[in-house]
Amino acid sequence: MSDLPKAVRIHEEGPREGFQIERASIATADKVRFIEALAETGVPQIDCISYVNPERVPGMRDAEAVAAAIRRRPGVRYTGLWLNTRGLERALRAPLDLVGAIRVTASETFSLKNTGMTIEQTFAEQRRWLAIYREHGIATEWGYVMTAFGCNFEREVPIAQVLRMVAGLLDLANEHGIGLKGVYLADTVGHGTPLSMERRIGAVRERWPDLRLGLHLHDTRGTGMANAYAALRLGVDQFDSSCAGLGGCPFAGHKGAAGNICTEDLVYMCHEMGIATGIDLAKLAACAQMAETIVGHPLPGKVMRSGAAAAAGSQH
Amino acid sequence: MSDLPKAVRIHEEGPREGFQIERASIATADKVRFIEALAETGVPQIDCISYVNPERVPGMRDAEAVAAAIRRRPGVRYTGLWLNTRGLERALRAPLDLVGAIRVTASETFSLKNTGMTIEQTFAEQRRWLAIYREHGIATEWGYVMTAFGCNFEREVPIAQVLRMVAGLLDLANEHGIGLKGVYLADTVGHGTPLSMERRIGAVRERWPDLRLGLHLHDTRGTGMANAYAALRLGVDQFDSSCAGLGGCPFAGHKGAAGNICTEDLVYMCHEMGIATGIDLAKLAACAQMAETIVGHPLPGKVMRSGAAAAAGSQH
Repeated sequence: MSDLPKAVRIHEEGPREGFQIERASIATADKVRFIEALAETGVPQIDCISYVNPERVPGMRDAEAVAAAIRRRPGVRYTGLWLNTRGLERALRAPLDLVGAIRVTASETFSLKNTGMTIEQTFAEQRRWLAIYREHGIATEWGYVMTAFGCNFEREVPIAQVLRMVAGLLDLANEHGIGLKGVYLADTVGHGTPLSMERRIGAVRERWPDLRLGLHLHDTRGTGMANAYAALRLGVDQFDSSCAGLGGCPFAGHKGAAGNICTEDLVYMCHEMGIATGIDLAKLAACAQMAETIVGHPLPGKVMRSGAAAAAGSQH
Repeated sequence: MSDLPKAVRIHEEGPREGFQIERASIATADKVRFIEALAETGVPQIDCISYVNPERVPGMRDAEAVAAAIRRRPGVRYTGLWLNTRGLERALRAPLDLVGAIRVTASETFSLKNTGMTIEQTFAEQRRWLAIYREHGIATEWGYVMTAFGCNFEREVPIAQVLRMVAGLLDLANEHGIGLKGVYLADTVGHGTPLSMERRIGAVRERWPDLRLGLHLHDTRGTGMANAYAALRLGVDQFDSSCAGLGGCPFAGHKGAAGNICTEDLVYMCHEMGIATGIDLAKLAACAQMAETIVGHPLPGKVMRSGAAAAAGSQH
């Protein structure tokens, strides 16, 4: 009936995606407390901070303080995001895990508005990053195709364009002798539907049958979990998600930018369908409740409110 | 790849499901204004009110006033819900459409807690209802299996039990010479997952290949839209949903009871996958914004906030 994976790996994006867009100032201690609680749930990787311009993203002005304060739990990776060499320099001084990535945007307009570069220019930029990572001994793990399912400016992003982006990332990696873990298709502004998931994942699979795929999904139009299910059916086993549904893309160009799909809702759905995540759902639901208390307003996650998290969590 | 229907019929449940659980008192005029705006979107049927005990459900104490005030648009059906003969008597005096239904609950415990009757007793009760409907010339259209995907007390509801409920409803209808439009499987407290949708819908289809199925889905654990997609893939073309995600089941026995899946998010997903709904998405998103203003707090719908509703709606 479908090709559901036996297990999925989930990267927690809540702290970075969430705290960078909150209007209220979040105390550094609260961020640290949340990250430390997340680390107790069994999530293998937590994206904690962005090394971005604090003028532009004030919520991340304490990035270094957060990084320094986290009591790290063995076996969990704590990552941060940088978008330029100044950000990388800060990351190199911080005590978190350094994971390299190469990123291109499938929509030319979105690329220009979000990064100020054409797609061609971003490829040249990624080549430069690969050299920098090699220089610093940073492993490059995943390639990312942003806006792989459409964007607010161009709306539809053709499948052929997505394939060109994937091919470009793989060529770049080959050129540097790097075996990527795989390629993420990112629904950066939440334009995807289950059908567009099937078509794009199907097209990539047809061309690169052995390439591992990851999905970064935003729930901007309510299709996030349906999209995740469509991908699970096709065997996708790597997802980004955000505890409590924290977050949203501050650069997405419209006020409706919603957060990633909600980690505990995704974990619930996976466990109930017999897909292992390695995550303790009850602990994760408690983290989601903590996140809501920290940001001081309701967050979109459902399982944290539904009261069945403990029962469900105990089964897997 | 799948058996997506060309078109779906959506019954709007927002006014009834929503206003009956809101804590704040909603003005009758606001309820009427919302229902009239919904009727302009192209939805074929709107469930407006419950004829329930106003002591128990104060939000419905103005049911008659709402029914009397609606300026009805031709081609739209305006329905109300009754649960006992006192409710039916009120419905018979009100100027709304009368649609008969038979309802049983697959979980014995939920049936007892929610209706005070065993499953066997509810079947006897439904037999009595069919006689009453015939007496009053009310057509009985759909059978409903409540908690078809599990409940909070028994958790798992076996597939064989769901099949028994469907068989019982069909036998009852046959006994009275009624050709039901079909049978609704209701995920009354939001326990379903895409996999349990596939299994239960598949089992019913296998036994009754020509039986039309409807789905009533609650998004209690975040799986609502994924469940809808799983059902669409199997060709299900009849859904209940709730504008803005209004509502929730006040009898569900836990505080986390969430509303139905959100109508405009469902419509967005359908339109983007080439499935017609006959609904104007931009108008519906405006209704959702109105609902949020009326209830005075955020509602879970996404498309009403995402800013792409107009563009998406204009395509279908």
